Amino acid sequence: MSGFAYYNGEFYPLDGLSIPITNRAFYFGDAVYEVFLGVGEAVYQCEEHISRLFSNLRKLSIPLLYNKEEITALISHTMKKSGIGESLVYLQVSRCAKERRHSALNTAHDLLITVSPYSLKPSEERISLITHDDLRYYYCDIKTVNLLPSVIASTEAEKAKADEAVLHRGDTVTECAHSNIAILKGNRLLTHPANNLILPGITRKNLLKACVKERVPFEERPFTVSEMMEADEIIVTSTTRAGRLVGKIDGKSVGGRATDCGESLCKILYEQFAQFKQQNLTL
Amino acid sequence: MSGFAYYNGEFYPLDGLSIPITNRAFYFGDAVYEVFLGVGEAVYQCEEHISRLFSNLRKLSIPLLYNKEEITALISHTMKKSGIGESLVYLQVSRCAKERRHSALNTAHDLLITVSPYSLKPSEERISLITHDDLRYYYCDIKTVNLLPSVIASTEAEKAKADEAVLHRGDTVTECAHSNIAILKGNRLLTHPANNLILPGITRKNLLKACVKERVPFEERPFTVSEMMEADEIIVTSTTRAGRLVGKIDGKSVGGRATDCGESLCKILYEQFAQFKQQNLTL
Repeated sequence: MSGFAYYNGEFYPLDGLSIPITNRAFYFGDAVYEVFLGVGEAVYQCEEHISRLFSNLRKLSIPLLYNKEEITALISHTMKKSGIGESLVYLQVSRCAKERRHSALNTAHDLLITVSPYSLKPSEERISLITHDDLRYYYCDIKTVNLLPSVIASTEAEKAKADEAVLHRGDTVTECAHSNIAILKGNRLLTHPANNLILPGITRKNLLKACVKERVPFEERPFTVSEMMEADEIIVTSTTRAGRLVGKIDGKSVGGRATDCGESLCKILYEQFAQFKQQNLTL
Repeated sequence: MSGFAYYNGEFYPLDGLSIPITNRAFYFGDAVYEVFLGVGEAVYQCEEHISRLFSNLRKLSIPLLYNKEEITALISHTMKKSGIGESLVYLQVSRCAKERRHSALNTAHDLLITVSPYSLKPSEERISLITHDDLRYYYCDIKTVNLLPSVIASTEAEKAKADEAVLHRGDTVTECAHSNIAILKGNRLLTHPANNLILPGITRKNLLKACVKERVPFEERPFTVSEMMEADEIIVTSTTRAGRLVGKIDGKSVGGRATDCGESLCKILYEQFAQFKQQNLTL
């Protein structure tokens, strides 16, 4: 894994980095994380990510020794030291304990930041999805590394040569294995409410703001698998891929009936980042 | 953490052991594990544990380079090298990959075995539980390290000075955060069926065998929180604690109405291990 890392006060090449077995992510998945897009020393939508990180730390009662300003400065410092121009920044806060025991009382915590080369490109081709049962837990609003159900669904997607798996609890579409999802129907955008069944994605929020800009009415309400299959367009959003239109689900052609609107929304998501990149890429 | 470890072909003191960040347990909880009781070089109920391990590896399509005999020999060898008489053996198989990506296709895997001093004692005092919503995923039959909901429930239990948390999906009791649970009512034992909502515990199976021995009819069917609160006895089972009777749930006195029967069943579970220990403790 090429890249650069900060771990508990020291800097390392990412390749060859080892983590003490006292890290409870290893035994329990007891960790929260964030993924950022970076340009030079600047993090795209830093405040939103850091705010979500701190909210998740609070939900799991993980005390972090840094405040928001300090952690932001530390991320920037790590990015600077990495010397990487455009990057993907991964941050993970785990709890640590000498003994393997379930309770998290009286544990310490550790902090990992990794910086790897990554360049967000505008999406040109429509992507394909498979549908998969959403068999996850009921803490989906917290960005933790308890990600095995997403691993299982993503593996099935890759086996089927698809790009992502769209998850449904019963008949209700929630989100994708590692993205949010929205549909356009009758020039109206629908996406699952940001409750404990989905991750409140930052690009999902950007999409809703893009709707305001484009005067597309939107509603945060659950929709069904059938509604999705018959939607005018289906938009998948994530930090690392911005917005992408869907062309196939389970091998069937979908969407393509509101292409102008779908493409405009995706374009806004990409251009917002491109503008940020323009402002910060000095390396 | 005092103890001894095998990791990917090498032996180490457990204290100070580090794991490469390419281990996907760290990013995704992409690992299965087993916990065994050990005496000298012998593992208690080894065949049952190894059989469950291989079943879980199959469920997640993790190929292990060893067959059952080889892994058993490796565990024994690690126990022997540890020089620890009575032990807790922890085994974890994780998937590994250079890049952090959700899909598990084209990943390698690694193997950790740790041996720590541990001595199973007969349970003398009744334990106390708290009730907690079962917010876990729907892969509870697979023993994976996606254990954050159990961490949350166990932490709440410890905060309340209780020994364990009993989980319920809606009104249905499933199991505890890291144990199975059964109730006695009218000289009949009830425990949740071994489906995807609970871990098929090996001590749970021993308990059902003990019922046969003690001529206690049993039924594998879900029971409710109210049925549990009004049960004659409540029995919590796990590898590391054998069988324990419950005295309190959420601060209310429970059970105590079929003490002879409950104690007999727990005694059988402990004595079965004690006999094994007698046969194997030569150190």
